[in-house]
Amino acid sequence: MKCRILEKGAELYFRYGVRAVTMDTIATELGISKKTIYQHFPDKDAMVYQVLESFIQNDQCKWEDLNKSSKDVIHKTLLSLEIMKTTLSEMNPRLMFEVKKYFPKAYDLFTKYKEDCIMNSLKVDLKTGIEQGYFRPEIEVELIARLRMGEVDLSFDPNFYSHSKLSFFDTQQILLDHFMRGILTEKGLSLYLSYQNNN
Amino acid sequence: MKCRILEKGAELYFRYGVRAVTMDTIATELGISKKTIYQHFPDKDAMVYQVLESFIQNDQCKWEDLNKSSKDVIHKTLLSLEIMKTTLSEMNPRLMFEVKKYFPKAYDLFTKYKEDCIMNSLKVDLKTGIEQGYFRPEIEVELIARLRMGEVDLSFDPNFYSHSKLSFFDTQQILLDHFMRGILTEKGLSLYLSYQNNN
Repeated sequence: MKCRILEKGAELYFRYGVRAVTMDTIATELGISKKTIYQHFPDKDAMVYQVLESFIQNDQCKWEDLNKSSKDVIHKTLLSLEIMKTTLSEMNPRLMFEVKKYFPKAYDLFTKYKEDCIMNSLKVDLKTGIEQGYFRPEIEVELIARLRMGEVDLSFDPNFYSHSKLSFFDTQQILLDHFMRGILTEKGLSLYLSYQNNN
Repeated sequence: MKCRILEKGAELYFRYGVRAVTMDTIATELGISKKTIYQHFPDKDAMVYQVLESFIQNDQCKWEDLNKSSKDVIHKTLLSLEIMKTTLSEMNPRLMFEVKKYFPKAYDLFTKYKEDCIMNSLKVDLKTGIEQGYFRPEIEVELIARLRMGEVDLSFDPNFYSHSKLSFFDTQQILLDHFMRGILTEKGLSLYLSYQNNN
């Protein structure tokens, strides 16, 4: 039952954000009593925390698979767009903003994940790309990785995307394309464009 | 006297941030009584507001001069780095962060300036660069201008720059270089590199 509640919670939070979805909504959707939910989760804070925790676990698995299935760092970046497409098509863009504002403990978990896993993985990819001649050797790896993380955060900021007529996914795609062009060498750019043309 | 107080306030706020500098500090530095300051500024809120107001006026003049003295949009971008170098070498990186946190009315003024002036000027430059064949024609002007603004905001965020061993100005330079490479055409990149090599 705990797994079913978590799955439903994740589904509803992703679609409508964490604010609009109450414990009542989740109970009604599952056809169970609120009491049953509270047997597994003492409060909404715990619920949001655990939903985010399993989201992170899933996300980690996806990135590990990506490392195996990609031919090189440029290919990996383009494949990562596919993951983002699936995730973002289900996600209310306000979600992370609301978690940050109303569930700081859960947000800390996410921040730690970004710092420990995503940031490190980005740095490894940047270094690999430089070694392979795809990324410019003069790149400041730490700063550029942090810039990329900052861009993703920025894209989730309502002040940023509310001005845009583009879909959330299109926005991500344009930001990633701009980011990549900013780091690619000539050799890297040809490979990048050849992957894009094959899609 | 009002001008002298404003100038000293600006100088001290820029160097030490708005939190550390009290009305007492400014009075002592000018060798005047605090009462004299309060004859011109009812409180610190008003002081910070007016300091920012005259900073914005100065900044506008500098950008207008830049439009006259630059040969094209790429040249303008590289000249803008010189303005940034002067401004940033005098500026405590915490300044804007503190204004945002503790002087929201003054920060609103800055936000309005960014929205009405900087954002528009950026969009004009992007469109001009596209027309002249220096920037890629498929660029989403609105989104890319907002990305650039977001990058500058990001660079002022203590969470961002505190990880860096680079100077505040070097960071700005790297971010701008990455931004430019992300939008340049082949023709634009040659011109950009030729300006850089001439410096």
